[in-house]
Order: sequence, then structure tokens, then C-alpha cells
Amino acid sequence: MTPRALLFDVFGTCVDWRGSIVRRGAELERSWGIPRVDWFALADAWRGRYQPQMETVRSGERAWADLDQLHREALDELVLPFGLTGLDDRRRDELTRVWHQLDPWPDVATGLASLKRLAIVAPCSNGHIALQVNLARHAGLVWDAILGAEIARAYKPQPEVYLESARALGLEPNDVMFVAAHNDDLRAARALGFQTAFVPRPFEHGLEQTTDLLPTGSWDVVASDFHDIAARLS
Amino acid sequence: MTPRALLFDVFGTCVDWRGSIVRRGAELERSWGIPRVDWFALADAWRGRYQPQMETVRSGERAWADLDQLHREALDELVLPFGLTGLDDRRRDELTRVWHQLDPWPDVATGLASLKRLAIVAPCSNGHIALQVNLARHAGLVWDAILGAEIARAYKPQPEVYLESARALGLEPNDVMFVAAHNDDLRAARALGFQTAFVPRPFEHGLEQTTDLLPTGSWDVVASDFHDIAARLS
Repeated sequence: MTPRALLFDVFGTCVDWRGSIVRRGAELERSWGIPRVDWFALADAWRGRYQPQMETVRSGERAWADLDQLHREALDELVLPFGLTGLDDRRRDELTRVWHQLDPWPDVATGLASLKRLAIVAPCSNGHIALQVNLARHAGLVWDAILGAEIARAYKPQPEVYLESARALGLEPNDVMFVAAHNDDLRAARALGFQTAFVPRPFEHGLEQTTDLLPTGSWDVVASDFHDIAARLS
Repeated sequence: MTPRALLFDVFGTCVDWRGSIVRRGAELERSWGIPRVDWFALADAWRGRYQPQMETVRSGERAWADLDQLHREALDELVLPFGLTGLDDRRRDELTRVWHQLDPWPDVATGLASLKRLAIVAPCSNGHIALQVNLARHAGLVWDAILGAEIARAYKPQPEVYLESARALGLEPNDVMFVAAHNDDLRAARALGFQTAFVPRPFEHGLEQTTDLLPTGSWDVVASDFHDIAARLS
């Protein structure tokens, strides 16, 4: 059954958050003239704060807060261990803003343009609208709409993020294919009736990555990259 | 002050709703083999129901309902006077769906692509997300995001539609220019601090149009079409 829309995980699936933070972090370090930082370790530690932070929102412990807030709060916790206490508010905001300027994996911009000719394409990410708009303009992602966490005021894997995104398109979950490099994201989507496509991103976490190298569920599509998804759906 | 984003009225400003309904109505009439319909009068009557319907939502008399619901309810009221009582539910839905397939004014697709190179571009329309997505794909509108009524669960000129759209982009109203062919829409936006651009669409209501032929406020930009807005902002 050909999907009428494709919803995409973004961080890791469309864009290389880790490599981008390392590259832009090093640029900022140079332009600010600050001591050397281990940007690989900082990127991992920053992202490591992500699930526990969102859990405080999912559990209802705190009201919905967007990723600019969560990323900035996490950075404030990391400045001491990473020797960045000298960064003032403006520089901390600028560094946090790097999450709006992540580079795509090489197949994504052109592959998404091909997929857009086959179906509606939209992000269903935990990133908020402003972040996704800036990211799309930076990375050349030709989305039809920005869906995901902010329209549901919830964070994946909460069901409403997936369901509200399909509903906003006027579609039932089984008319929509969820695309991700993460098996657990696909598992959550399939439990709600979505079609699923797995694309491995074996270097999301660096050269020694051990997770999500292979599909761990019988997903509807397993593809090598976005062009391969387009070929399989054509 | 160069705007960082442009928000657009859509019906009338970007797309020729009246001419499109006339053209597609005539196509459906032929394919269905039904008696002749005065599609110009039907389009005007259909659109004429629009403000009173939205007023029931704005006043709180009824909960937020999207334009598919409002357009279909209005059509059900018009089948008797227009000799369309023979249309079954499926055909009424198909006719209602014409509002997702409106053609752009000639400058819009290419003009919007130029404007997108200068700033974020997004619709701020009373049309819901699914309608705007389908319309954009039909008319070649390269939006960065779909904003407007649905994310605010309100209808223009209620302030939250404009304000929520700017907020979703992480911008203040004075960083955003509102573009419309309707002076009253611009008046509502300016009262909230938005920059404003007027583009006349002198045939929106047909050859005898008498309203919105000229700017009636001192808008920041008065342009002949979308290319002219791009030239003035460059």
C-alpha cells in the first residue's frame, strides 16, 4: 500500500547532529579564541542529557518546553566539566543555536526531493517548529509542513506526537510511513498503525557505534538511504 | 528593517479561489453529466458563507472546526438554490475538496521562491494544515512551514492566529512582514506590531471588483506582485 505521506525522524535520521556539533564547535572555539574543547565528548554528553530532560516533560513533572530551552539548560550543566564556564550568555545561546544548523547526511537533500514527488513529506521530530524551519533552510530539506512535538505539545515516543502529525495531514496512520534510523522510534510508530521504513545511519554515534546498525523489527521497508526508499516506493 | 520572515494570507492573495472553483466546477459538471450550474454565482455564495461561519467559531458559539467542515456545511446549504441536490455525499466531498486544489496567481510560485531566498516564508491563513499542504503541492508554493489558524485554533482576524504564527518561528511581530491583498488583514496584523505588504489582486472577485483595489493604509510595502516585493526587500 503506497503511503500518502512520509513522516521523518530528524536528529540522526536526516541530519548528522554529532558531526555537525563537532565541526561548528571547533569553528566557534577558533573564532572565540578559547582553549581546546573535546567536542566529540561534549556532543555525546549534550545529547545524553536529552532523554532524561524530555522525560521530565513526558511525566508531567514540568510543562512542555522546547528544545532551545532544554539544550540551553543542558549546556549550562556541561560548561563546568568541559571548561566552558567562561562563555557568557550570548555565546551559550550561539552554541545552543548550532542545533538549528546541523548538516544533512549526503543522500538526504536530494533523496527527500525525490520522495516529495511520491508523497507528502514532513518531519515528526522532537525539535520544535522554529528549529526545524531553520534546520530545513540550512540543510536543504524540502518539507511540505513542519509537524511533530510542538503541534502535539508532547515528546516522542508519546503516541500523540505521531498521531497528531498524521491527523494534521488529514490522514490515517496506515496511510503514512514513518522513516527513522532508530528501531525504537519505528516500534512506537508501528504500534499506532503506521507503516515503517528503516534507514541505517551507522555513524550517527561515531565510528564505534553499536546500536541501530541493523533493523530489529520486520519493518515494511529497509533501505540503504533516502534514494533507496524512493526506488522501493516508485 | 528587513523582515526575517514573511507570513502570507492565502485565499485571494496567493491563489485565485474564485476562478479555480469556476474552472474545476465546470470540469466536474462535465465528468458527472449534471445540468449546467452557474459556478461564478456558486463560488461567490460559497465564499459568502465563510465569514458568518467563522464568526460562530470566533464567538465561541461552536468549537474550532476546520475549513473542510465549514466548506462542506456551506455546500449542503447551497445545493438546493443551485440545483445540486442530486449530488451524493461522495460528490459533495469531492467538490469541497476543490478548495485544496486552487490555482495560484501567475506571479506566486516563482515569486515565492525568490522571497524564500530572502526570508522564511509561511502561510498565515484560515485554511488548516492539510488543506494548505495539498494546496501548496498543487500550486507549487515552497513554504518553510504551515502556520495560521490551526496552530492557534482560532480564525483571523483573532490576534492569536498572527501572534502564534510569529511565536512558532521564534520571532517577534516586528521581525515579520504580513503580506495580503486585503487591507483589513493588514490592519489586524499591523495593530499587533507586524510589518505589512499590500499586493492588489484586482480580479479576486471578478471583473467588477470594487474592494481592495488600492491600499487604504500606509503599509510598509505596496507592491504590484510577489516579484516586486522581492525586488523591494533585496
